[in-house]
Amino acid sequence: MQFIASFVKTRVNSRFYQLAETTTELLNQIDANRLAQHIEQLSEIGRTAQGGVTRLAFTREDMAGRNLLRAWMQDAGLEIQRDAVGNLIGTLRGRDANAPILACGSHIDSVVNAGKYDGIVGMVAAVECARVLHANGGLRCTLDVINFVMEESSRFGAGYGFGSRVMAGLPISKNELFARDRSKVLQARAIQELKGWETESKIATERTALRETQKDIDASRYDWSRVRAFLEVHIEQGPVLGRAHKEIGIVTAVAAPTRWQLVLTGEQNHSGTTPMNMRHDALACAAEIILGVERTANEFAQRHVIATVGVIQNEPNVMNVIPGRVELRVDIRSAEADAKRECVESIRALLRAIAARRGIGIENHTLADEQPVAFSERIVGVLERVCARQNIDALKMPSGAGHDAAHIARVAPSGMIFIPSRGGISHDPREFSTTKEIARGAQVLLGALLELDNQSV
Amino acid sequence: MQFIASFVKTRVNSRFYQLAETTTELLNQIDANRLAQHIEQLSEIGRTAQGGVTRLAFTREDMAGRNLLRAWMQDAGLEIQRDAVGNLIGTLRGRDANAPILACGSHIDSVVNAGKYDGIVGMVAAVECARVLHANGGLRCTLDVINFVMEESSRFGAGYGFGSRVMAGLPISKNELFARDRSKVLQARAIQELKGWETESKIATERTALRETQKDIDASRYDWSRVRAFLEVHIEQGPVLGRAHKEIGIVTAVAAPTRWQLVLTGEQNHSGTTPMNMRHDALACAAEIILGVERTANEFAQRHVIATVGVIQNEPNVMNVIPGRVELRVDIRSAEADAKRECVESIRALLRAIAARRGIGIENHTLADEQPVAFSERIVGVLERVCARQNIDALKMPSGAGHDAAHIARVAPSGMIFIPSRGGISHDPREFSTTKEIARGAQVLLGALLELDNQSV
Repeated sequence: MQFIASFVKTRVNSRFYQLAETTTELLNQIDANRLAQHIEQLSEIGRTAQGGVTRLAFTREDMAGRNLLRAWMQDAGLEIQRDAVGNLIGTLRGRDANAPILACGSHIDSVVNAGKYDGIVGMVAAVECARVLHANGGLRCTLDVINFVMEESSRFGAGYGFGSRVMAGLPISKNELFARDRSKVLQARAIQELKGWETESKIATERTALRETQKDIDASRYDWSRVRAFLEVHIEQGPVLGRAHKEIGIVTAVAAPTRWQLVLTGEQNHSGTTPMNMRHDALACAAEIILGVERTANEFAQRHVIATVGVIQNEPNVMNVIPGRVELRVDIRSAEADAKRECVESIRALLRAIAARRGIGIENHTLADEQPVAFSERIVGVLERVCARQNIDALKMPSGAGHDAAHIARVAPSGMIFIPSRGGISHDPREFSTTKEIARGAQVLLGALLELDNQSV
Repeated sequence: MQFIASFVKTRVNSRFYQLAETTTELLNQIDANRLAQHIEQLSEIGRTAQGGVTRLAFTREDMAGRNLLRAWMQDAGLEIQRDAVGNLIGTLRGRDANAPILACGSHIDSVVNAGKYDGIVGMVAAVECARVLHANGGLRCTLDVINFVMEESSRFGAGYGFGSRVMAGLPISKNELFARDRSKVLQARAIQELKGWETESKIATERTALRETQKDIDASRYDWSRVRAFLEVHIEQGPVLGRAHKEIGIVTAVAAPTRWQLVLTGEQNHSGTTPMNMRHDALACAAEIILGVERTANEFAQRHVIATVGVIQNEPNVMNVIPGRVELRVDIRSAEADAKRECVESIRALLRAIAARRGIGIENHTLADEQPVAFSERIVGVLERVCARQNIDALKMPSGAGHDAAHIARVAPSGMIFIPSRGGISHDPREFSTTKEIARGAQVLLGALLELDNQSV
């Protein structure tokens, strides 16, 4: 590799740097043990009784995890900046100030009772690559390692990837900032509180929090014009690689969710005295909708559509009362825009028909309605070559899950590297990938950074 | 009426008693305004934002309501006793110490966001009858007006009518005392805390609470051997009287619930990456069970079976995770034992088949499995005669809801008087009965007490 040659020339006398003659030697410097250790250390913050991790965005656990991450980033030789909404950007200055920028990263916030790999793997892999590159004199390009805030939407229930959307300058709706968590904390307030923990400033009212957050969002837009590539390593979170006995997934496109909040209003009544034929049972209506969503998604399964009802709130939720009000949250997604649109329309018609037939009131609030995104073909090509050169058996595949890279792909050439998830299990304490698989993901990332750096000459 | 004649003879000179020459005059002394006032006053304790009432058993609201009731009972001339689990017994001594005892009463605890008539109507009607009788020199028989604790099972989710079962000496299972409310408070603990508020005694541990409660239950068994009749006035809580344009329901039998807690265990997983055909979605399974329960009950509807899933808890209940665990609570009831048993068996088989087909684990915990109870034919006859004499258009009917009287019926001759519920709506802030209907219920109760007292000679 050309840069290695120049590096050897310029840095040969420094006692602070390890030398590496070839890409292979650099790849061999990826320290699998350190990756495993970092994952273990992070998993202790927010550990649950079931052995999982709960580190919801903008909580104290999230903050503690990100403080640990920041220490690792500094230790890897990165100069850290924190934007106004909390994204961390660790910079390894390139040797050529005029060269383009390469970026990589992921997130470390989690769902409730999550596994310890989702997001984390991409983050520790990126830091490990930076460490190796820094130890070997850096790249010609500047490298930005990014930790996005609030990739998971579990806490506030709005769209995923808040931090990456902010950095990409994509719209953040008012509704989203007005969203509240289960303790009724406003999303905007949570963001300001996070700042408060660092700056000791106090945000008195929700109104102030909303205004400040709007300012912070505007101030946190990142300049992608000089970015040649953004790369993210992530666990697959699905069963495809495992079933196909593949080592690495090269992601071609990311499915985007359409998300609804449905509110069903029936007639709350004593469950012992109301004959079956005089009921307007909101929960029975919800049950029919849940099965309808499942059945319709099954009809579109060949076109990679999936649909899930993940949330149900039943009122009053006591034994001897016919449920009067039920809230459902529905998530419909596909990497194929047409298939998704058709499925969404089928389900929309179906749930109206069910509610009408049962005499149940229905409101349908759209929480998110995003378009699938395709990754850069050039970067897919780079990743294919890197895998071929490293003798890695890779599979090109779409991603059913959303990722920060899908948002960045709208403003900069982007790509994703999947590593297998055992049994396809994710968002669960049993989520698992081997240390070897994780190190392999980091090696593909490092290989791609080196190739992209090389191309930038 | 014979007793009135004797009463006029003995009490004619007392300035403390009003005289009444006939039953009609006594019935006219039922004060509809006082009944309405008492209902309004009680409804202010535990008032909800939606205009309903939440006065769950053994809470401070329940205690406050029962303190108010106790004051009314004393004011009506009753001597109050409180048994060890909290049932209040107000006694109006009869003129003949050897005559049998007549008893009446109901409850004032409520479900979540309830109406203001369920239970309350029977309680204020009983107190009003006692007031009229006391003001007119009492009965030959001793009258016990009983306020049962915890008729509603909403707080702990076990069988209904705890207080009446305790007084009847019916079994209270260990499981029931071990039941916990949403704040994880043990039922036994709640009972002991109630005592604590009155006696200032502190119960240190749950174990002590369980032991004490077991003692209290044994000590609170009432002696029914001398009771000629127990009567309860109650709102119908259903639409039958209203639809049939009837003024009073004379209850012939009470349906009994079979109640299950179902725990469904699927596979929690990321909702975006798991293909539809590889899911073990506990919520989709729950939805199929909810519809199966509804469909099976519909098949048995001609035999007055009703079945309801009133409670659902979904885990982890977040948007982007396939639900891994769902808890359902099912209530199946009928006044016809055979029909209920057949329906229960059908549903049991159905839910096992659904869970098996979906690869979902299922546990079925029986929370209650009670037998329907028929009321005393003699008392049904008394109520029919009383209604006929008062020119009241009455309907004999079974009760779908459980009531304290159903428990008392197992140990003493019992009967129930229903008044109409507008629209059949109950366990809801819109629950409504007119003051006239309530006063009519009290008049039927008073008429029946007078006839039973007369028969006791």
